[in-house]
This record gives sequence, C-alpha cells and structure tokens, in this order.
Amino acid sequence: MEKFHRNERLAVLMKTLCDSPGETFTLGSFADMFGSAKSTISEDIDIVQNLLEKFDLGSIESMSGSLGGIRFVPSYKKDKIKSILNSLCQDLSNSQRILPGGYLYMLDIIYDPKKISDIGYIFAGHFYKREIDCVITVETKGIPLAFATAKQLGVPLVIARHNSEATDGPSVNINYVSGSSKKIQTMVLPMRALKGYSRLLFIDDFMKGGGTAKGIIDMVREFESEVVGIGVVIETLEPSKKLVDDYVSLLTLNIVNTEDKIIDLKPSKEWI
Amino acid sequence: MEKFHRNERLAVLMKTLCDSPGETFTLGSFADMFGSAKSTISEDIDIVQNLLEKFDLGSIESMSGSLGGIRFVPSYKKDKIKSILNSLCQDLSNSQRILPGGYLYMLDIIYDPKKISDIGYIFAGHFYKREIDCVITVETKGIPLAFATAKQLGVPLVIARHNSEATDGPSVNINYVSGSSKKIQTMVLPMRALKGYSRLLFIDDFMKGGGTAKGIIDMVREFESEVVGIGVVIETLEPSKKLVDDYVSLLTLNIVNTEDKIIDLKPSKEWI
Repeated sequence: MEKFHRNERLAVLMKTLCDSPGETFTLGSFADMFGSAKSTISEDIDIVQNLLEKFDLGSIESMSGSLGGIRFVPSYKKDKIKSILNSLCQDLSNSQRILPGGYLYMLDIIYDPKKISDIGYIFAGHFYKREIDCVITVETKGIPLAFATAKQLGVPLVIARHNSEATDGPSVNINYVSGSSKKIQTMVLPMRALKGYSRLLFIDDFMKGGGTAKGIIDMVREFESEVVGIGVVIETLEPSKKLVDDYVSLLTLNIVNTEDKIIDLKPSKEWI
Repeated sequence: MEKFHRNERLAVLMKTLCDSPGETFTLGSFADMFGSAKSTISEDIDIVQNLLEKFDLGSIESMSGSLGGIRFVPSYKKDKIKSILNSLCQDLSNSQRILPGGYLYMLDIIYDPKKISDIGYIFAGHFYKREIDCVITVETKGIPLAFATAKQLGVPLVIARHNSEATDGPSVNINYVSGSSKKIQTMVLPMRALKGYSRLLFIDDFMKGGGTAKGIIDMVREFESEVVGIGVVIETLEPSKKLVDDYVSLLTLNIVNTEDKIIDLKPSKEWI
C-alpha cells in the first residue's frame, strides 16, 4: 500500500475532518486510509489541532470509550466573531437598504454563501454543546442560514412550510399568532420529518415579537420533541419582551429612520 | 514573524482554498500569511494539487495575468459520481418512501447537509466552466441544493418566491404554466436580486414537464439575464419532451408503482 508523508496526511486530514463537522472518525479509519500506525495519526491530529487553534478555525474534540474517536468542531474566537459582526453591521447599515415601510433589504446578505457560512460557524460554535439532533426553520428566508448551521453541526435540516404538498405525505398543521402583527398563520411539518424526542435548534433571519419561534416550539411538541436553542441573525430592540426567552441574536436593530435614512443596528450584547 | 513548516502550510492551504471554492487567491497573499517566499508557496500548491487529484477531491486552477492567482475547483471523477448516484438511487428506491398518488418522500435526502454537499460538488464540477454569476432556484425544496451548489461555485444564490413580501422591495412578477399539470402559477423576484447581464444556473430538486425551468428562463429575461445551465436531482422519464432542452439530471425516475410498491429509478444516462 502507498505510504503518505506527514505533509500529505496533514493536508488530507484537515480537509476530511473540516468537511464533515460533528462526524466522529476513529484513528483506525485514518490509519487504514494512510497505511500508518495509529500512534503516528495521533501525532498528526495534535498538529492539526494546534493549527486550527493558531488560525482560529475551530478545534478537534476527542471522545474516549467505545464511541471513541475525534471530530471537528467549528467555532471562532470572540475577536473574530466581533469583527464578522461589525462588518455585517456596516454592510447592513447602508441607507440604500431602506425599503418603504422601514424594512431593510438584506436578501443579498442572507443568501450569500460566504457570509452565511461564517454565520453557520458562529451558531454552530455557540450551540454545539447542547447536543442538537436537528436544525429547524420556517420557509423561506432562513433556509440558507439554517442549512449552513446544520452543515456545521453535522445534523439534518427540517423545514416547516406554510402549506402542505403531496410530496410531504401526512403532516401536522398548527396555527400560530405572529408576535408583532397578531395575525394568525399556519405552519406545516411532515409527520416523517422528525423522529420523536429530538433536540432541535431553531434558526431564522429575523425576530420581532418571537411569534414564529413560539409557533415552532408548540409544533415540535406534537412530535414529542423539544427546541433546545434559538438563533436569529437580527432581533429588534422593541418589543423588548419577546414571546420566547432563551434565544441568541447576532445583531440588534433599534430603529430604521426612513426620514433621515439612518439605520441603528449593532452587534447584540452577547458578543461585545 | 512566525515561520511555518511545510506540514503546517499544506494543511492550512488545503482548508483555506477548499473553504472558498471559486475564489482567487494570489501566491503573495499566502506568502504574507506564512512568511514564506512565493516560490515555496508555489511548491506547496503543487503538492496540494497532487493530493486533491489522488484523493479525488477536486483540483487547483491557475490563472495567469493581472487577475492571476489560484483557485480551488470542486469536482469528482466519474467513478465517484457513479457511486454517489447509485447509493442515492438505492436509498430513494426504498418502497416505504411511496406516498399516496405515487409521490416519493425525499425531504430527508434533499435537506441532508452531507448528501446535499456531495450533490453541490457534482453540479459545481459539471457547470463551473460556464462562468456562472449566480445560482437561482424557486422556493422551497430546491433551496438547500441550490445553496450548496452556489457555495461550491463561489457565487451568490437568488431565490424566486411564489408571493412577494415587504422585505423584497419592488419586484418583478411573472405567471408561468406548470409543464405537467398546466396550472398557472406566479413567480416573484425582487428587482434588487439580480444585476443585468447575469449568467445563471437554475437548480431544482425535480423536473417533470420543465414548466418551472421555462418560467425561470422567461423571468430572468426581464432582468436582461440568461440561464446558461439547468441542473435537477430527479427528472421523470415521461414526458420525454420537456419544455426546456439543455438541462442535466442526476437520476431518472421511470415509474412509481404504488400497487406492487416498486420504484424504478436510475442514474441518468449522462453519468453511466
């Protein structure tokens, strides 16, 4: 069997681990892949771990026991997160983004693979200790964000929709009340989409009153499952009392002043 | 400045390049990052290129001239693609997936980050030479697929919706006729979503008559833009004449026999 140099092993280890965050690899599987001793691979992993640390790219976690092995955990340090959020704020505070009604145009950001991957990294780093089984979102704007987060946590994505389709199979419908507009809306989740007793992370682009998050919590209860984390990109400062308590936002929007064309948007307290 | 060993440079180069497919990096930027000579970095890149080739993970492309530099291009070789498509077929041919009306439950697959990333790799490898500016899809089921493809091509994603929202700003609406059911449907794209003269890749989960693809082609014409590629995960064998000509499918569905519970699904001719 072909032998590989440490050079080569390190590069391929780095790609393999980082391409599959959250997935557990045994030293044995890498030993087979490279035709090396497990002790050699173990030294390689230490080097990869140091590099991830040095370049602030995440970390390697070792698990012992019969489920033993190593896995890549994406996370950024506080300074890098701050700098990502500051540049996001700057971009979103451009007055040309102001739309009629005081809305902010942000589709170019929340559909941008590079920016979204960074946000997925931040959410994954923040939530991975909660042993998430599944990321959930509601169509449409939060889907790329939720997908990037699921990818970095190494778990499946589930999407609730507003109407059911033939391709869903049997589904559970619930009505929920939007936190800000008090409108009644419908949410649908296919019966097959969730196994019971799942621990879910709800990801969305925007939270005003928290009605959608509350709707998701109620809905997954019908699947005997539980929302154990909520992450949104932007929350509004008002109403300060949301319909849910335990959530994390990246940015906080105070006001969009359509007259003076001023957007007051800051990284949320959590990250400062 | 701290010096890095070749070991370390290779691992970090691999991650940096592969995390940002399609993005051009100069040798100078890596020379600065590692405090090494450009000639040394150039040797590093050759090793990375060989490794990518050996492990079938993609390739490095060099561009000369004033826009010179290197970029990572994701692609798999034919054998690997075949094996991915075969395992996809096997998974999707499980008779428990059959839903009333002969539909196939496939949400667990098309929302699975790992499987979808592989499909994104395949589409990106197939289409990257067409100089795509943007990936486009219609809500909802194709979004994760389109996002993963956009990520691997290093271009933005654009999502057409069925109804407009206040956060879209001014938008273009068009009506289109579904190719199979002949129902009239509406599609909306925000005016700001597309720059003129964009070259677009349309990605979706399923194609029967091709009406949606045709709708997208008509819609982006309103933005003086052009669909230069169409990729779908599954196409149906019938109708064999679709409303669009130039498209690529990964799998072809002949029939879902709800009585005998048989699903006839194969990798499309293109890949065999």
